[in-house]
Amino acid sequence: MFRILKTEGRARRGVFETPHGTVQTPVFMNVATQAAIKGGLDAFDLRQAGCQVVLSNTYHLHLRPGEEIVRTLGGLHRFIRWDGPILTDSGGFQVFSLAKLRKIDEEGVSFQSHIDGRRIFMSPEDSIRIQSCLGSDIAMAFDECVENPSPRDYVKQSADRTYRWLVRCKSELERLNELSDTVNRGQMLFGINQGGTYKDLRVEHMKKIAELDLPGYAVGGLAVGEPTEVMYEILEEVVPFAPSDKPRYLMGVGTPSNIIEAVARGIDFFDCVLPARNARHGHLFTWDGVINLNNKKYEEDPSPIDERCECHTCRNFSRAYIRHLLKAGEVLALRLAVLHNLHFFNKLTADIRSALEEDRFESFRSEWSARLSTRI
Amino acid sequence: MFRILKTEGRARRGVFETPHGTVQTPVFMNVATQAAIKGGLDAFDLRQAGCQVVLSNTYHLHLRPGEEIVRTLGGLHRFIRWDGPILTDSGGFQVFSLAKLRKIDEEGVSFQSHIDGRRIFMSPEDSIRIQSCLGSDIAMAFDECVENPSPRDYVKQSADRTYRWLVRCKSELERLNELSDTVNRGQMLFGINQGGTYKDLRVEHMKKIAELDLPGYAVGGLAVGEPTEVMYEILEEVVPFAPSDKPRYLMGVGTPSNIIEAVARGIDFFDCVLPARNARHGHLFTWDGVINLNNKKYEEDPSPIDERCECHTCRNFSRAYIRHLLKAGEVLALRLAVLHNLHFFNKLTADIRSALEEDRFESFRSEWSARLSTRI
Repeated sequence: MFRILKTEGRARRGVFETPHGTVQTPVFMNVATQAAIKGGLDAFDLRQAGCQVVLSNTYHLHLRPGEEIVRTLGGLHRFIRWDGPILTDSGGFQVFSLAKLRKIDEEGVSFQSHIDGRRIFMSPEDSIRIQSCLGSDIAMAFDECVENPSPRDYVKQSADRTYRWLVRCKSELERLNELSDTVNRGQMLFGINQGGTYKDLRVEHMKKIAELDLPGYAVGGLAVGEPTEVMYEILEEVVPFAPSDKPRYLMGVGTPSNIIEAVARGIDFFDCVLPARNARHGHLFTWDGVINLNNKKYEEDPSPIDERCECHTCRNFSRAYIRHLLKAGEVLALRLAVLHNLHFFNKLTADIRSALEEDRFESFRSEWSARLSTRI
Repeated sequence: MFRILKTEGRARRGVFETPHGTVQTPVFMNVATQAAIKGGLDAFDLRQAGCQVVLSNTYHLHLRPGEEIVRTLGGLHRFIRWDGPILTDSGGFQVFSLAKLRKIDEEGVSFQSHIDGRRIFMSPEDSIRIQSCLGSDIAMAFDECVENPSPRDYVKQSADRTYRWLVRCKSELERLNELSDTVNRGQMLFGINQGGTYKDLRVEHMKKIAELDLPGYAVGGLAVGEPTEVMYEILEEVVPFAPSDKPRYLMGVGTPSNIIEAVARGIDFFDCVLPARNARHGHLFTWDGVINLNNKKYEEDPSPIDERCECHTCRNFSRAYIRHLLKAGEVLALRLAVLHNLHFFNKLTADIRSALEEDRFESFRSEWSARLSTRI
């Protein structure tokens, strides 16, 4: 299902087949946590923004509206009107970052909903069952995400349990995919590598999960407190032990530089809330660095956010107009800004793909890094 | 500039020419108070929603971003990317409904900004100069809008002053339209009839302003406290004294029934924040009445808001999805709901126009009223 078209160093230009179409990698997935992109974008806007894969969240959709409702309505694709690939995160990360009073044991995690405080129990099987109801193309394994740094003993014990949970996730998805009324019987499971910042634990864990021969592998538990350099070092150590014929996904990362550097270390899939979060604050990505539209100097600026950008926002609206909308508290500001920032990230990965196709990824990488040092 | 194609009773099917194209009347104008439609719609969404005329506000745009900035950027049409007709309200109503500590005298009104409390003075000439900078196609006269009911003496005195202000507005716009660097030299002035709920004062005022031979006439100061029946009675009395060869605009009105009843009484132009405000609360207009999407019964409802509606929202999304978005606090809920409600109002006036063209406006009106009594 994953075909590598070209490589340059460890960087890969690939093609990944899903039940809802082909993904060109490296790819940046666009985050629709609650089955909606922040800022009021719908699935049609996402197409305009060059989105290939939508990412939604098991934890959030379990709490609201509930996976049975989504299943009754024909699954997430029909619910949000996106006929391309969808990946669902397992809820593991959110249980550990959002939910309160959580208790973890071998069976699963019990926690309090961050919305109404009700007590919920989620096992690896529950997470997979929810994702099966949602009918995503890629389900993520239910894992424990520890913060960095955490004590070695705990990280070791947690990574071992996450491995055992992965085995359970795999059996559960195989079982569900056999059922005739399953929403998306071609749903695939990606395993998640854990091990905190301990390189040997990371490698050991990756070797074990690699044996399960899953359709894809993610590196989880990074960008959760450790310095960026540590993240890069871990990728350098652990990625070589991920199966080379399967896509690799670095979860929750990151800035344009993070993405380029991770591609150089062999990563194929990315997702991050950064484009939407920055847009909300008026921080817009351009090829010359981030601009802050709250700055008074843009008050009468008739130019688009980025002269070189071809997104709906840049083709039509001035910095001055978007700044006015931000200042006036109009939600249209968010929509135009998020649309631009997502387009930027989707275009960035498209440019990375072109560079790889034309054997000039290293020069693309140096050029970006030179630009960074002068402008951002 | 205004041509009546057909009449049925007092109802008129007309065509009004502006510097930015033709308006088919009766028309519902879509409100973009701060140069943006609430809920994150842009000018391209408005076209999809069947909008003919955008209405923006002098008071709001004077406070933020300031008319000189809009003028520098080429006027409101370029600022918001709407190449169709734009009407700007004069700020009169907002000064009296939003601003604080206002003092009114013959020269104009001094008031405190509702945003930052700074003291601002606005004369009829100021309002027209601001609207000239914005470059709308239709500028509204600067008037005093009294609440209903108000003492007869005050209403009389206020209506007389509003008349003298109208004369000043007219001279000022004529002067500005002569200048070579004016944004929209074809800008037109609509006068505004006042007189509270006193029919004789209304008629007297309308007769006086009619003599000024303006391109259009509005009825202001209604739907500000008086019962609906009183509004209809005033329209019946005063509309016959508005020039029959000029368009008539009922400001800030109203519900679908209000619009139909006002058309029956000879009104051609409407505007109201109702579609956007109701959308924000999950109240969606349908041909069978208003539905409240917060109601649990829509939780698993796969049908569109209105089966007969052809808007982007109804062509693509289910009640269940929009309800989920509302409950989850996603701004996409607002956008899809506002888009639908505006489409509904634009379609309603389009249907009124068709009915007038086919000599069946009265049966359209009875049908609506029968439907109302059973469903809404």
